[in-house]
Amino acid sequence: MKIGVIGGGQLGRMLALQGADLGFEVHIYSEHSDDPAAQVTRFWHQGKIGEQEKLNAFFQKVDVVTFESEFIPPGPVAEAVQRTKVPVRPAFDLIALLSDRATQKDLLIKNKVPTADFVVVSSASELENFFRQHKKGMVGKQRLFGYDGYGTFILKSSADLQNFLQDHGGRLNDFIFEPIVPFRRELAISLARDGSGHVIFLPLVEWKARDKKCHWVKGPAKHKALSAVKNRLKAFVNKTDYRGLITFELFDVGNGLLVNEVAPRVHNSAHYSLNGLSRDQFQLHLLAVATDTLTGDPQPLTGGFAMVNLVGRTNEAPRLETTKQGFLHWYGKKENRPGRKMGHINAVAKSADEALKLALNEEKKFKL
Amino acid sequence: MKIGVIGGGQLGRMLALQGADLGFEVHIYSEHSDDPAAQVTRFWHQGKIGEQEKLNAFFQKVDVVTFESEFIPPGPVAEAVQRTKVPVRPAFDLIALLSDRATQKDLLIKNKVPTADFVVVSSASELENFFRQHKKGMVGKQRLFGYDGYGTFILKSSADLQNFLQDHGGRLNDFIFEPIVPFRRELAISLARDGSGHVIFLPLVEWKARDKKCHWVKGPAKHKALSAVKNRLKAFVNKTDYRGLITFELFDVGNGLLVNEVAPRVHNSAHYSLNGLSRDQFQLHLLAVATDTLTGDPQPLTGGFAMVNLVGRTNEAPRLETTKQGFLHWYGKKENRPGRKMGHINAVAKSADEALKLALNEEKKFKL
Repeated sequence: MKIGVIGGGQLGRMLALQGADLGFEVHIYSEHSDDPAAQVTRFWHQGKIGEQEKLNAFFQKVDVVTFESEFIPPGPVAEAVQRTKVPVRPAFDLIALLSDRATQKDLLIKNKVPTADFVVVSSASELENFFRQHKKGMVGKQRLFGYDGYGTFILKSSADLQNFLQDHGGRLNDFIFEPIVPFRRELAISLARDGSGHVIFLPLVEWKARDKKCHWVKGPAKHKALSAVKNRLKAFVNKTDYRGLITFELFDVGNGLLVNEVAPRVHNSAHYSLNGLSRDQFQLHLLAVATDTLTGDPQPLTGGFAMVNLVGRTNEAPRLETTKQGFLHWYGKKENRPGRKMGHINAVAKSADEALKLALNEEKKFKL
Repeated sequence: MKIGVIGGGQLGRMLALQGADLGFEVHIYSEHSDDPAAQVTRFWHQGKIGEQEKLNAFFQKVDVVTFESEFIPPGPVAEAVQRTKVPVRPAFDLIALLSDRATQKDLLIKNKVPTADFVVVSSASELENFFRQHKKGMVGKQRLFGYDGYGTFILKSSADLQNFLQDHGGRLNDFIFEPIVPFRRELAISLARDGSGHVIFLPLVEWKARDKKCHWVKGPAKHKALSAVKNRLKAFVNKTDYRGLITFELFDVGNGLLVNEVAPRVHNSAHYSLNGLSRDQFQLHLLAVATDTLTGDPQPLTGGFAMVNLVGRTNEAPRLETTKQGFLHWYGKKENRPGRKMGHINAVAKSADEALKLALNEEKKFKL
């Protein structure tokens, strides 16, 4: 089975590496030969999304196509599907809905998945009205291309609101606005759904941001609303005929769990699965998009697991360390940059906290 | 760091895959673009060992060269080292000694590593004389290119001996002869030694052959002579200045352990380490040949682990299964053949036996 991946970053890289062990021939479509994913396969195809002939030729080489980012211009991909009859999974019309935060929220609410209220506004007065209703403030999120806190604005005071209107008042429709949700912890859960509709769940995990970016993940986590939410999420992916792995970022609001964001692809919060589970998210995604053989939730190998992102802090070449405790996954990026995810460290131990301690300890040894 | 691997089989493949996670750029030198290792790297270099200019060019691309088989003609490699000043590790003059079973035995005995007696003979009468001294029979082993039982002859009766002399009497010097050693179990242990002389050991494992080829491995195993033998092996690699991972196949003879064979490279008996240990043999080998950072023996993640080889039985394309319990490592070989190692399954569990049971159960689902 030949699987094409659009995109050459670290997610594509790990899809290619893990796919090889399952006997999948993973083909990568990306722009530069030194892209992280391009380095780990003989089946690399040079091209940009907009280069239609190259994209079509790539589709023709494989049995099914998937992607590492939902923010691909849909036109060229739709064209390639139509011309080559090679399917893209998850389906691109669904991705179009999920990659726009407004239609994503509509879809969640329509399918009774618990999530915070939201509005889309077309005028400053509408926004001011929504702001007055929410005493704890609100969050403005750019509808498209938002990730890692990019395009997110916390608006707590009237001054915040006026500043925001000054900067973005001309394109208010490009945002959704939600009330600020006071949460205890940020959690996440991934599931995968295959060609026969089998749905399997990875464990619930807790994660923590630093500088608006995921810093660490630990698990498995527990929550009393988990079982009910899993039922909703399962119904959601069945109803939308979702194919592949999908991650839901969650707010723990005490008695309940609210879906904050949806990532229709492999996701940073499940990188721990490379060493912590009986099957990793990359293999699960490939099996989900290419087969109907998913069966049984992957299980933790030990009492707990953790992941810590290795994020660039300078423009200097990083000093690569040999992790003593924990598993290094380096992405092979040619340049270090402040804020850039350069790799991650996984650890396993008797408990989540113990694993996290090991991984954080290893992180300190890296000079990034 | 750029590491070159001579050879495109499954060992090269797993070196490339595991090396990527450590941030090593693993270059492969092999003949065909569909070789298992050639598929998983952008840094594939086409060539045969005998093509000196291509081999030299390959050496010039990397910082250090290693290999997946000790049976490489030494001339071209020595020439490439001399021309490019790029080192080969482990050192090729040592490999020349270890790849000939006669000089390998000399080296073991000289370094007080316990191993069975042996002779090299130049006449039928010398061989008959040795045969008479060993009532339980003897084993003839081809000195070069022996692996997986290939080139091994069990000689128990006078008829066996006469048949052997009839077939091979003209080239007796190509063999070594040992008394048959009655053993309880076949065991194996791997160690790695780096540029500063740090030596780390993987756990002792038990393995079982089927059709003269490794069928399964389980561990960790125990033996009362282990600690003493480890001291001998450590002295052996220090004395010979060995650099890299090396595996010793052992006979459990009750009170003692005898080294049966030495494989100066990554080895089938340690494939379990990809999922069973805190660090796998492929990363350990790369760290050993390229760095001086080895520290601490890798630890089992669970109570026990096991590996089962997936060996071809027909010439038909194998039906690839999704393992439910256990980790599949498929080698991407283009053709199935009876006796060919096509992949392996690792499993982990509370005990070695439980892990082996899981892996053997998964093996049954494959049609090879």
